[in-house]
Amino acid sequence: MKKKLYVIGMGPGEAGLMCKRAAEVLAACDTIIGYTVYVNLLKESYPGKEFLTTPMTQEAKRCEMAFEEAAKGKQVAMVCSGDAGVYGMSGLMLEIGETYPDIEVEVIPGITAALSGGAVLGAPLTHDFAVVSLSDRLTPWEKIEKRLELAAEADFSICIYNPSSKGRPDYLKRACDILLRVLPPERICGTVENIGREGEAAKLYTLQELREAQVNMFTTVFIGNSMTKEINGRMVTPRGYRIG
Amino acid sequence: MKKKLYVIGMGPGEAGLMCKRAAEVLAACDTIIGYTVYVNLLKESYPGKEFLTTPMTQEAKRCEMAFEEAAKGKQVAMVCSGDAGVYGMSGLMLEIGETYPDIEVEVIPGITAALSGGAVLGAPLTHDFAVVSLSDRLTPWEKIEKRLELAAEADFSICIYNPSSKGRPDYLKRACDILLRVLPPERICGTVENIGREGEAAKLYTLQELREAQVNMFTTVFIGNSMTKEINGRMVTPRGYRIG
Repeated sequence: MKKKLYVIGMGPGEAGLMCKRAAEVLAACDTIIGYTVYVNLLKESYPGKEFLTTPMTQEAKRCEMAFEEAAKGKQVAMVCSGDAGVYGMSGLMLEIGETYPDIEVEVIPGITAALSGGAVLGAPLTHDFAVVSLSDRLTPWEKIEKRLELAAEADFSICIYNPSSKGRPDYLKRACDILLRVLPPERICGTVENIGREGEAAKLYTLQELREAQVNMFTTVFIGNSMTKEINGRMVTPRGYRIG
Repeated sequence: MKKKLYVIGMGPGEAGLMCKRAAEVLAACDTIIGYTVYVNLLKESYPGKEFLTTPMTQEAKRCEMAFEEAAKGKQVAMVCSGDAGVYGMSGLMLEIGETYPDIEVEVIPGITAALSGGAVLGAPLTHDFAVVSLSDRLTPWEKIEKRLELAAEADFSICIYNPSSKGRPDYLKRACDILLRVLPPERICGTVENIGREGEAAKLYTLQELREAQVNMFTTVFIGNSMTKEINGRMVTPRGYRIG
């Protein structure tokens, strides 16, 4: 039988938003590997495990570590915040897995910030939507800019990941300026910070106001589509059902 | 204290892919309301509950039922397949909630088919992506067509919901023809059927082949971006990490 290696989406952080199968695999495994911040969120709930971490720019090394530990016969879980796929490690794990043909990779999905943040705000993504990361560490800014502009033209609701970091404090402002070429300044938008963790906070804005919003690397941003409205402080994109 | 009404994303169907908080709320509630097919998946796991259903075109009535039952003092959960937001009922619930100011709506997210199906295929949505439904019951076809075309131009990976139904057996073919105006015929695509349920099946295609694929209302379709490749029978969109 092939050895198995798990890539797990742990959801936003709160144990209640992890799926049952992910929790079961974590409880059964020997070794949990991931990015330091997210692995630390698991240490209390999974005592007695071996925890291995690598910092942000060491993703390929982190994956190789996971395969090497699994090759020794350990039950290994690579954890990702949110989903295992969406800006997660499942792609890189399957790429690196080519050189470990005896180890099978199983991907266990998780609730990504578009869904968990959406639930906090209300219902911003009820209809067609696009997800765009503003991180230009691995993607040219011109490509990000083009995706934002075309997503706005297509009238998608848009969910923005990684809106800011220390090295690029003004990226959300730049993204808003691109969106404002296509969308009206009063378009309903929202942000959620620290989803499912201490300090969770949601806020509504117009697109014009969002341009000045203070965001950080733990903020997820939502841009409404042409139908999105505010109902009692919540962000709601109708699907189009006739009421009454 | 305000009465509370829950809108729950139950994930694809398998209990292991439901989040813990959703399972806890279902276990604690008196009444579970939803579309017949999905409510039936829950009957065995939650014995002793009151189950209420309405058919496909009665969504507003279903939501009103939920508020009326909650107004009587019952603990009520409205369930949606996948996520509570993505093509789910949270938007309509918040709209109808305007006429029930004494009842607070709490949204509990779930794993939508883009994530659960993506995990089965491998890692199709590792980078920026768009989600488009081909159902034109509530959306003009011209708008769907425009969204597909702009999503392809933006080089998003695209996840397609509702690719077919009895009344519109050729919609996926029509969608592929639109995508083929922009994308090459050899673009890597994939489908997943009955995710997390009996009969789960994944398959890879080129975009040209996908045009002829047999799909149904329980199929989710994935269109790769320009970087997507096949690795050992799995669909993988690299995020761009340098390997080695």
